[in-house]
Amino acid sequence: MIISDKILTKIIQPRPLQSHKGDFGRVLTIGGNINYGGAIIMATAASVSSGAGLVTCATNKENLTALHARVPEAMFVNYFDKIALSDSIASADVIILGPGLGDDIRAQEIVQVCLTNLRSRHTCIIDGSAITIISQNTHLKELATTSAAQIIYTPHQMEWQRLSHILIPEQTTSTSQKIQAFLNATVILKKYHTEIFHKNRLISTLEIGGPYMATGGMGDTLAGILGGFIAQFNKNHNLNEIIDAAVYFHTYVAQELAKENYVVLPTKLISQIPAVMKKFE
Amino acid sequence: MIISDKILTKIIQPRPLQSHKGDFGRVLTIGGNINYGGAIIMATAASVSSGAGLVTCATNKENLTALHARVPEAMFVNYFDKIALSDSIASADVIILGPGLGDDIRAQEIVQVCLTNLRSRHTCIIDGSAITIISQNTHLKELATTSAAQIIYTPHQMEWQRLSHILIPEQTTSTSQKIQAFLNATVILKKYHTEIFHKNRLISTLEIGGPYMATGGMGDTLAGILGGFIAQFNKNHNLNEIIDAAVYFHTYVAQELAKENYVVLPTKLISQIPAVMKKFE
Amino acid sequence: MIISDKILTKIIQPRPLQSHKGDFGRVLTIGGNINYGGAIIMATAASVSSGAGLVTCATNKENLTALHARVPEAMFVNYFDKIALSDSIASADVIILGPGLGDDIRAQEIVQVCLTNLRSRHTCIIDGSAITIISQNTHLKELATTSAAQIIYTPHQMEWQRLSHILIPEQTTSTSQKIQAFLNATVILKKYHTEIFHKNRLISTLEIGGPYMATGGMGDTLAGILGGFIAQFNKNHNLNEIIDAAVYFHTYVAQELAKENYVVLPTKLISQIPAVMKKFE
Amino acid sequence: MIISDKILTKIIQPRPLQSHKGDFGRVLTIGGNINYGGAIIMATAASVSSGAGLVTCATNKENLTALHARVPEAMFVNYFDKIALSDSIASADVIILGPGLGDDIRAQEIVQVCLTNLRSRHTCIIDGSAITIISQNTHLKELATTSAAQIIYTPHQMEWQRLSHILIPEQTTSTSQKIQAFLNATVILKKYHTEIFHKNRLISTLEIGGPYMATGGMGDTLAGILGGFIAQFNKNHNLNEIIDAAVYFHTYVAQELAKENYVVLPTKLISQIPAVMKKFE
Repeated sequence: MIISDKILTKIIQPRPLQSHKGDFGRVLTIGGNINYGGAIIMATAASVSSGAGLVTCATNKENLTALHARVPEAMFVNYFDKIALSDSIASADVIILGPGLGDDIRAQEIVQVCLTNLRSRHTCIIDGSAITIISQNTHLKELATTSAAQIIYTPHQMEWQRLSHILIPEQTTSTSQKIQAFLNATVILKKYHTEIFHKNRLISTLEIGGPYMATGGMGDTLAGILGGFIAQFNKNHNLNEIIDAAVYFHTYVAQELAKENYVVLPTKLISQIPAVMKKFE
Repeated sequence: MIISDKILTKIIQPRPLQSHKGDFGRVLTIGGNINYGGAIIMATAASVSSGAGLVTCATNKENLTALHARVPEAMFVNYFDKIALSDSIASADVIILGPGLGDDIRAQEIVQVCLTNLRSRHTCIIDGSAITIISQNTHLKELATTSAAQIIYTPHQMEWQRLSHILIPEQTTSTSQKIQAFLNATVILKKYHTEIFHKNRLISTLEIGGPYMATGGMGDTLAGILGGFIAQFNKNHNLNEIIDAAVYFHTYVAQELAKENYVVLPTKLISQIPAVMKKFE
Repeated sequence: MIISDKILTKIIQPRPLQSHKGDFGRVLTIGGNINYGGAIIMATAASVSSGAGLVTCATNKENLTALHARVPEAMFVNYFDKIALSDSIASADVIILGPGLGDDIRAQEIVQVCLTNLRSRHTCIIDGSAITIISQNTHLKELATTSAAQIIYTPHQMEWQRLSHILIPEQTTSTSQKIQAFLNATVILKKYHTEIFHKNRLISTLEIGGPYMATGGMGDTLAGILGGFIAQFNKNHNLNEIIDAAVYFHTYVAQELAKENYVVLPTKLISQIPAVMKKFE
Repeated sequence: MIISDKILTKIIQPRPLQSHKGDFGRVLTIGGNINYGGAIIMATAASVSSGAGLVTCATNKENLTALHARVPEAMFVNYFDKIALSDSIASADVIILGPGLGDDIRAQEIVQVCLTNLRSRHTCIIDGSAITIISQNTHLKELATTSAAQIIYTPHQMEWQRLSHILIPEQTTSTSQKIQAFLNATVILKKYHTEIFHKNRLISTLEIGGPYMATGGMGDTLAGILGGFIAQFNKNHNLNEIIDAAVYFHTYVAQELAKENYVVLPTKLISQIPAVMKKFE
């Protein structure tokens, strides 16, 4: 199915008058080592701007100050503190695991802590380095595949090759869907005309977007918007449609900005989220 | 009494021509542990933007750089330095205690230092974690209840349950007012149609606002605006009216922004404060 | 003499076509301890925005990151490194000494290093805490008074009381001028209708401005603009007129912003400097 | 040849629809010691904004937080970690060496690591302090001159004097070109009417620009734009034309901003890059 902007009108409904921040969900972002701190900051900012009720960022302590300088709305947890990390997972509704996490041994441990703490009420978006880590570790892959939580992978084609063992030229709808089913997860395969393999075997395709989005940080921003949308719209809509809406919305904002910009910077995209959402309410 | 925008016109008067920053009061914000630094940064920024003459932020040293990166207009004090904290309280007019403070033993000590240093000329806004701490500590509650200072609590309903021991479903105007009278304080009970229980037993009700405000940091921002309004308008207006004006103003700015934004981020709200105040001058 | 906007048209001339950053002078800002880092950041930002060719900020290392997060155009020196500080003074044209410096023993040492390194080609703006330090130390006051450099003090009335020993109610034009002559310096006495006591005994008065400027950081911003104006306009204009222009300009920008803002935040003022200067070019 | 805006229309082509960030190149910026961190932040931001696919900043760890606070799109590497630095060079397409690097012994080592790791597929922009270091070290100069990579120097006149040993008054087109040929590099000689000495002995001249650009950080910004343009346009255009386009574009953006600003701040220029590029697409 080709996603259209109708999905935005459907999902981005007026909020119930009597509501408080708890009603719009808790997002936990996990990532950002010392080299890639910007990635988790962008994912976090995108979740905040897209309307999650409360957002916590579990990251390397080196990223604390830059996080608050850009997004004081978010809370901080040191991701090496396993107790604090487990507690944060326990109180989160949606977890975004992976932006800027890196793939060293400590990152692997964080992925393990996350996967072992997932419960059926969780949705976990597995992005970036976390996909690579899971691809390379049979135990973690088993944990993810058998998780009671809703798992959403957001690989680009090379990451999908690692995770699915399908070489990029052989990544067809049917080969990809077979592995997706085995993974027991939604797969958002990011590419020219992104495909979304839903768990009920429906496939959604994105036909908007363009090369103005080909810049570092766009994927982190998508992960953040997915988190924000799922956290707040989960009660009243089914997950497939929320995912389609988030993916479409991310690109729609970029497309709008691209009318006036040769490239669309993720931070610029993030700043426009609340205003563009309003247009579809 | 239902608050209307008339209160803004009444309180936000043209400033006397011959005045200096000392005339608009000194605000001290106290809060922001290593996990919740953004909360105290937003409260501080809101006090600065709403016109306090001088604003100092007593916080964890980890928050120093993010504070100055966002609000260089504010000064910094290490909140673990008891002498510096006491000195800052002594020279402040309005104290905002609690945004992002957390509730561990060191936070409790800070609340104690603050409460024991309050004098009759102080107004102290007790927000967030500080409400929880006081709820759980008989000695501190006694200190607050018998304080010579004007005390203003800003609980949401769960915090009010903790402080008042009234379960949320049983929080009626009359049950709440009884406890508020016992607390010897103003209580701003944040909820759908926020109620303000004044010390003279008058009750003000807010009938504007909406679910676009249900996002982390909104409460911190309200605390900051309360601080800024009380610090500068205290000389010429009575406290009840200033509080009503601050609460109404906070929501009014959000309401204006919500015309163009699906959610209203606290940092965006803060940036609009000086311009919206001007409209009512 | 009452300063009018004619001084802006006179001083803010089109720049010579063939020029490079060295032609617009080097400003060194010195200040910002751990508590008042925002002050030196605002002074530095104001110098950069008002057109100084190169700006270096000598401050506490704790302020390094916030400085670069806000003003990457400025360079950094650790003000406790006496050799680096002396070298920076040696290569500067204009020095702004004092915003957020504090008045402890280490601050006093910094003032001493600065004053002993001044040469006749320097202009030194002595602001904030540095005025208090010099007021309380006979040796430093002697150094300043006998300096070969152009000294400009920018006290508010309480600081002027400390420096001049004239009580605020007795600060008349004539009593102030007597002490100013003794100090061998320009004195910009900041108050309702700021007075500038020039070294040639002319007195300039500012009749614009208003209470929207009564907010922490406005003085630091003025110091920064003075630095920027003197650094770049010194070659073609006499110092008195440049000072008058800077003081008028600072207030003019605030006045323009006050049409739309109840209070004018220093950081907002700074952001408007290049555009407002353009109007007078 | 005098560069005109035709070069922008020629180089800034619509991007191929099916492309990803890898297609627009990897830029590595190397510089920013503890004193001059802002320089490398501005160069990095300019590369990101001008459309490089991925940008990594190798700098002093002290600059990590300010980098992410301003440009979360960029990744970080500690430039003292020789293995990480070599790896980053190996995976980069374009390297910007020198903004804010300083010229001490550790900076010299970094220049050496960079030059020894260059391969024929690299383009290396040598800017600021790196030019001075190479000027003063025969071995490094030999390394640069014999490098298989495309080398681009971006000296101002004093730096060119150091590198070429031609005194500023004797820097004519013909004396400069002789040394440039010997250096086996492109030389962008920044001055009133900047001259570009291409490797094929063609010379391009810039006739736009003005004194509103004479402010610290403009050179760093140019280096960043050069990096961004070369990284993304290298496949479809020859290097000479890309360089001409980048130099012209940098000044064109400044010229546009100068219509409304007395001085053009580098950070302001950077913020306008995507929108101005769009006008020429």
